[in-house]
Amino acid sequence: MKVLDLTRVLAGPYATMLLGDLGAEVIKIEQPGTGDESRNFGPFKNGFSLYFMSVNRGKQSVTLNLKTERGQAIFKQLLKQTDVLVENFRPGTMKKLGLDYDSLKVEHPSLIYAACSGFGQTGPYAEQGAYDMIIQGIGGIISITGEPGGPPVRVGTSISDITAALFTTIGVLSALHHRNQTGSGQFVDVAMLDSLVAVLENAVVRYFATGEPPKPLGARHPAITPFEAFVSADGHVIIAIGNDTLWAKFCEHVDRQELIQISGSERTPIERRTIVNCFLFSRRSWRQRKTDDWIDALGAIGVPCGPINAMDKVVSHPQVQAREMITRVAHHITGEVEVPGVPIKLSETPGNVDAPAPSLGEHTDKVLTGLLGMHPDEVEQLRRHGVI
Amino acid sequence: MKVLDLTRVLAGPYATMLLGDLGAEVIKIEQPGTGDESRNFGPFKNGFSLYFMSVNRGKQSVTLNLKTERGQAIFKQLLKQTDVLVENFRPGTMKKLGLDYDSLKVEHPSLIYAACSGFGQTGPYAEQGAYDMIIQGIGGIISITGEPGGPPVRVGTSISDITAALFTTIGVLSALHHRNQTGSGQFVDVAMLDSLVAVLENAVVRYFATGEPPKPLGARHPAITPFEAFVSADGHVIIAIGNDTLWAKFCEHVDRQELIQISGSERTPIERRTIVNCFLFSRRSWRQRKTDDWIDALGAIGVPCGPINAMDKVVSHPQVQAREMITRVAHHITGEVEVPGVPIKLSETPGNVDAPAPSLGEHTDKVLTGLLGMHPDEVEQLRRHGVI
Repeated sequence: MKVLDLTRVLAGPYATMLLGDLGAEVIKIEQPGTGDESRNFGPFKNGFSLYFMSVNRGKQSVTLNLKTERGQAIFKQLLKQTDVLVENFRPGTMKKLGLDYDSLKVEHPSLIYAACSGFGQTGPYAEQGAYDMIIQGIGGIISITGEPGGPPVRVGTSISDITAALFTTIGVLSALHHRNQTGSGQFVDVAMLDSLVAVLENAVVRYFATGEPPKPLGARHPAITPFEAFVSADGHVIIAIGNDTLWAKFCEHVDRQELIQISGSERTPIERRTIVNCFLFSRRSWRQRKTDDWIDALGAIGVPCGPINAMDKVVSHPQVQAREMITRVAHHITGEVEVPGVPIKLSETPGNVDAPAPSLGEHTDKVLTGLLGMHPDEVEQLRRHGVI
Repeated sequence: MKVLDLTRVLAGPYATMLLGDLGAEVIKIEQPGTGDESRNFGPFKNGFSLYFMSVNRGKQSVTLNLKTERGQAIFKQLLKQTDVLVENFRPGTMKKLGLDYDSLKVEHPSLIYAACSGFGQTGPYAEQGAYDMIIQGIGGIISITGEPGGPPVRVGTSISDITAALFTTIGVLSALHHRNQTGSGQFVDVAMLDSLVAVLENAVVRYFATGEPPKPLGARHPAITPFEAFVSADGHVIIAIGNDTLWAKFCEHVDRQELIQISGSERTPIERRTIVNCFLFSRRSWRQRKTDDWIDALGAIGVPCGPINAMDKVVSHPQVQAREMITRVAHHITGEVEVPGVPIKLSETPGNVDAPAPSLGEHTDKVLTGLLGMHPDEVEQLRRHGVI
């Protein structure tokens, strides 16, 4: 499967990265001279963006100025050998170039054209640009993340970009299934805002059920208690006590048997604060035990618990290592660097990360002379004219 | 496409919901008498769980006791008409039932078998159960979410469940593409922990580049300034000033022209606190303007900005409405209820939400007599024996 990739920054590149990890050949088209703007995003190693590296591994880079006639002609030649086109421009940009789906589908009826944008291709906000941070605010996830009454807190990863990338990938693969059966392509329209609304989960139904917008609850679960973090000698311990049997084991372990009879429904938010926090979590003796010791002890009696790992502990975690979720790619500028692995483990067609992100235009000559059969002199001429 | 759905609670049901939204027929197998435990999760309407409703719409429910011989025989008959099996039991559970992939693939070589679990099917933690909250702690997202120096904060939605669901869906569709070409099925193994590591985005490369684990930054962006929220008369305004041109426009608008010359790289974390916070955000006059007025004014000069919407504003947002991201299903117990829509907009094979979540065993008779051609008397007998 061949993917023509017009994406930049995060949502689009993450989607084409996944398609590449799963075996597609991804040709990334970049503006000559500048390229994907995330090539300028830190952190850098030897001047190469590791941000860019982490979401563009395995892709080929071809520079092409789509605003020139010759650039458009080359683009259309590439399109003949393309199964999937992915772009994440602001809606309208591709139409201005004459390269929108309606224009392309006439000659390429089997093309799958995926557009990933902030607000989607339709609706009153369609043509507005969007950043993840703005979508996190509009889409409501900030309103349910953070300390009660505290300042607003964003989700620490660009969650609306990434969920949009995942839904775009699902859309492309779903369209591919349809094409395998009918031969027809189609248009896939995914918005960051829609994607965020789709992952709000029970916050939406809680609002409609109660008429009250759910509020942020720190590290606590909205419906189960205790399902939160408490302070240890050297950090925090998360406990997830999902039923009364676990609650009894936990109370026994911390020598508060008199609390066992307080049932799950009685450990509700209002009582919880007095009972659970004051009677349990405020005990000074708890803070004398280290996180790892708590986890060993609670784990031994079957109470679900865990640490709050910072990134150093995450990447060296034995399970993360065993699942090869941190992998390495070698690039001639950066040398070996670590990138996240592929979380989709397929027994017969396993995904893999087999090449670093490309330097700008690294594969222009190869693709133009190889895939399109151009003479090297012609490629040089295109370069002189700023087309590539 | 037929999906046999053995999933419970969130990650698995979310994946089969997406497959159903995209057109698959999903038959959910539930334990007689109890069913999916999330049927007991609030909020409720007329005693029916809206939590369950929101991630099981459009599915059929068949009760079947897989621990009985007769139940297993019926399961295997259903399997003959199944393309995809999805389960999210703790690894090992299906093997104990004799229904693991290795046992089933002998007779069903074209079966796609997807297993979604907390830690995955391999590695030292494989057999541990997991809750989203525990995985958020182990997987590092809590370490980069929250106020600097503040207490731990979970992402307000069950993000490790949901990303695992999305990667499972991608794995299933990817396996389907392989099967369309070869006729062979395969095993899809997705872990919540792997999925969370895969979406940490630049936090992973930032750690490897600097050796310093990234810390939570409240509502601020780690690399761009100002890209955060400030206080207005009635809430907050998020601004996302991604370049110096926007910075100049912003400074002019708030009448602080003397700050224009401070470039993006100078507005870095340490200086930022004095320059941006003290000189800009602390001005009392800002707090006299309401959020909507700020957004109108900044929007007019092209500065990306937005509100922090609580759930009431999210579900009534004109763009969310225009994209049909809140839709309604009617169930005979609950009446009409709102559920999130489908964020994957396909031009030729659009997904849709066409039925409510089923009552427990609602489709047992239909499926057994229809799909399997059983006589109604036999179904009654199975019911008396507790098989269904």
